[in-house]
Amino acid sequence: MNGGRALLGTLSELGVDACFANPGTSEMHAVAALDEVPELRAVLTLFEGVATGAADGYARIAGRPASTLLHLGPGLSNGLANLHNARRARSPIVNVVGDHATYHHRYDTPLESDIASLARPVSGWYRSAASAEDLADDVVDAVAAAHGPPGRVATLVVPADVAWGEAAPRRSALELRPRHVVAATGIEEAARLLSEHRPAALLLGGSAVRAAPLRAASSIAVSCGATLLLETFPARLEHGAGLPAPSRLSYLPELAQAQLEGLAAIVLVEAAVPASFFAYPGQPGRLLPPGCRVATLAEAGDDAALALLELAERTGASSTRPELAPPGRPEAPEGPLSAASVAQAVGHLLPDDAIVVDEANTGGIFAPGALVGCPPHDWLCLTGGAIGQGMPVATGAAVAGSGRRVVSLQADGSAMYTLQALWTQAREALDVTTIVYANSSYAILHYELQKAGADPSAKRASELLDLDRPALDWVHLALGMGVPASRVETGPELVAALGKSLAEPGPALIEARLPTSFG
Amino acid sequence: MNGGRALLGTLSELGVDACFANPGTSEMHAVAALDEVPELRAVLTLFEGVATGAADGYARIAGRPASTLLHLGPGLSNGLANLHNARRARSPIVNVVGDHATYHHRYDTPLESDIASLARPVSGWYRSAASAEDLADDVVDAVAAAHGPPGRVATLVVPADVAWGEAAPRRSALELRPRHVVAATGIEEAARLLSEHRPAALLLGGSAVRAAPLRAASSIAVSCGATLLLETFPARLEHGAGLPAPSRLSYLPELAQAQLEGLAAIVLVEAAVPASFFAYPGQPGRLLPPGCRVATLAEAGDDAALALLELAERTGASSTRPELAPPGRPEAPEGPLSAASVAQAVGHLLPDDAIVVDEANTGGIFAPGALVGCPPHDWLCLTGGAIGQGMPVATGAAVAGSGRRVVSLQADGSAMYTLQALWTQAREALDVTTIVYANSSYAILHYELQKAGADPSAKRASELLDLDRPALDWVHLALGMGVPASRVETGPELVAALGKSLAEPGPALIEARLPTSFG
Repeated sequence: MNGGRALLGTLSELGVDACFANPGTSEMHAVAALDEVPELRAVLTLFEGVATGAADGYARIAGRPASTLLHLGPGLSNGLANLHNARRARSPIVNVVGDHATYHHRYDTPLESDIASLARPVSGWYRSAASAEDLADDVVDAVAAAHGPPGRVATLVVPADVAWGEAAPRRSALELRPRHVVAATGIEEAARLLSEHRPAALLLGGSAVRAAPLRAASSIAVSCGATLLLETFPARLEHGAGLPAPSRLSYLPELAQAQLEGLAAIVLVEAAVPASFFAYPGQPGRLLPPGCRVATLAEAGDDAALALLELAERTGASSTRPELAPPGRPEAPEGPLSAASVAQAVGHLLPDDAIVVDEANTGGIFAPGALVGCPPHDWLCLTGGAIGQGMPVATGAAVAGSGRRVVSLQADGSAMYTLQALWTQAREALDVTTIVYANSSYAILHYELQKAGADPSAKRASELLDLDRPALDWVHLALGMGVPASRVETGPELVAALGKSLAEPGPALIEARLPTSFG
Repeated sequence: MNGGRALLGTLSELGVDACFANPGTSEMHAVAALDEVPELRAVLTLFEGVATGAADGYARIAGRPASTLLHLGPGLSNGLANLHNARRARSPIVNVVGDHATYHHRYDTPLESDIASLARPVSGWYRSAASAEDLADDVVDAVAAAHGPPGRVATLVVPADVAWGEAAPRRSALELRPRHVVAATGIEEAARLLSEHRPAALLLGGSAVRAAPLRAASSIAVSCGATLLLETFPARLEHGAGLPAPSRLSYLPELAQAQLEGLAAIVLVEAAVPASFFAYPGQPGRLLPPGCRVATLAEAGDDAALALLELAERTGASSTRPELAPPGRPEAPEGPLSAASVAQAVGHLLPDDAIVVDEANTGGIFAPGALVGCPPHDWLCLTGGAIGQGMPVATGAAVAGSGRRVVSLQADGSAMYTLQALWTQAREALDVTTIVYANSSYAILHYELQKAGADPSAKRASELLDLDRPALDWVHLALGMGVPASRVETGPELVAALGKSLAEPGPALIEARLPTSFG
């Protein structure tokens, strides 16, 4: 058994059953072993950013890592932006990067690069495998590291001579660690803050935005008269009828400050102290009002759900009824499309148990409100701010969620970063419906340009943020990669196209033409 | 004057007249200054790999740096693969990366990342600007570092508060260093090797593959009875009728070994000791025959052209007539297309003073032979092995070569990495004709899979290297980005489509359907 076979076989034995791959020569011994490990689903992507983003989407839905298979430093480089997002999502990923044979580095051939320096910023664990004999155990360590908790990107570099060398069976077993149980003092401190300082808020993120902890937190908030808030971009939010639907903290600092205004205390549950996404001249980075007290109930890797149950008990909220969103859907939209009516159409038709992938950016602000009464669904956000995450995450989520419909709400500018994902959706016949918010603009940047104090008549500056010369034709782009596509300009057209896609297996893309402007 | 204005203004004053940009919020003060620096051409790309590849192509043709404008660590990450290629090409690039305000890092907001760790592997020079007051001088240092010689990627990180802070005029002047003159002892050593050890070879790379040094090297080779060879993937080779046309060292190690077989000595001129691109089990990485003596006439940054003139004098070759390719074009091809007949069609029609960008990979092996009698042209190769370079480099080369026709020979698998380049070609009305070699396969990897000893019936392994399920439709993809496109299946169809594109300004794409197989 060579290293390539040991790599794939060990991954599969440890429950890693999908590999998102862009292999090259240095990975060829792993590719050659694919037919011997039929349990491992190998999914080809045509760009590494799709592979890493798909591994992220897979992890968010499956709750366990997929692997990647990337080609040396440049292949890793192409996947870094979505590994950055995955790191922020705390998604478990076994990130496998092939490398030159260990003795080949001395020649500094064209693909030689400093993989460690490239990988470290996104990797919570990093190792370059030193020998075929130990490779299976390296895989055990990588899978364990990826699981965490919290989940992390575990980068395992596999030199070509390790992949073709004679491997030994693994000696170690996979031991997964449970989430860390929060100490009683932490629960008490949070309870004390909520009772002694009013008004107070709970801010939830990470694993605390799933159904059970959301319900517990809502009971606490109702019981204590506190405000319940969610982090701005959750990795996986359970959303819909019968679930609490607290507001997310706004991306715009002025709006977030308004949400936090007057607070005397805040309890953080797998969430950071609220800070402005970007800095602006003369504006504070920290968004809490002066004097606001802060307690951290749970950090990443802690058992936030259990901590919230205990906090509910400690605050006497266990039997308090949480505030839950009632069922109800918007009417079908009429007239020309707007960002609001796109959301309305999705809310009108969202199927049961759907997965919503949200990289709609400015266009997407109406979507949570329109879908809040739909049957419960998972909502996956752009966690790290690196655009080009949506379509790859939708791809991986569909692989993990086999049978669940993925509705991918996608801004046009961001979609262009990793449009190759559509091809993989077609190849794997994935149930993904992509709606492109085609406003032909980096709309958020027009807003930021104004904020930067640009002369409103600054033509060259403004043009640098527009995508309308030439206009992108998403029907052509999707068809070019084998995904059925249509263009819609009115509410009824969107409802018809969306209904058709939801009724048919496999992917589809709908280009929703929107006015070229912010909002 | 704020830092953003100082950044652009100083770049422009120092001769940097193009900026390939994917800006975000942290770069908005530079964007807002664009209208005040009209001499600087800002070119929007829809993915950072296009921006960095275009800066590389620009540098290769203009001989001076363009700048980029990238958005924090993730934006840089997306541009890294083509910066890797640019580093291998020794292209001068001023790589500008925006960052959070210096005091904002503490909040670890979503886009925070370790930019230095990401940038260092590709950067020959790196600095994060510490203050607006010094920014103009930082730009002077970055431009000087980019120029070299040799050219390098100079990464200048500009925090947002440096961009919006009050800048001071620059205090330093740009002083460009000349190439280093090779010492007489180096010339003598090379001359001695060529006269005392037969058979001998000269291996040329870097700046030594331009017309004048090529002619000098050919005279030396003829006079000394030595073989003249070129590095495998030159950054910019002058090629065509009236120029020497030595063989390039093969990418395949067995063929390269055959080219080098029996050599008693080799003189390296801006070229590395020949080594196998990848390592293979039981095969040597170093390709020179045992005992072959090596002299280095010029390293990167040396004046190779002058060194070759002096070596010609020292070896008495100054008046020896170099071996020059005679003019002559292939006939127009007939019948169904093959890789050979695509090359034939290009050779039949290549216009004067063209720029050929070659990322045709396996499909491109016939192109040099078919074009060797065409009017002189520049030939730009994939220098670092990171695929996805061709269309971005073609884009930047067209910006630099205003008026010169760029013919971009492009493998389909590689083209998918950075297809967003087509949109920029349309937007800027660039004279680029792209021919996609559509063999629906990572053909080179099928070859490598065999070499890795895979069972020929290994279905899943083989499928992971195929692009035919679904087939990519390049006509749709190009039209989706505003580039006129057509599909051709025969020689006459290709000649007609190519002739039409060459006769019209602006970009076009031709999908050349080829048999799905290696070669």
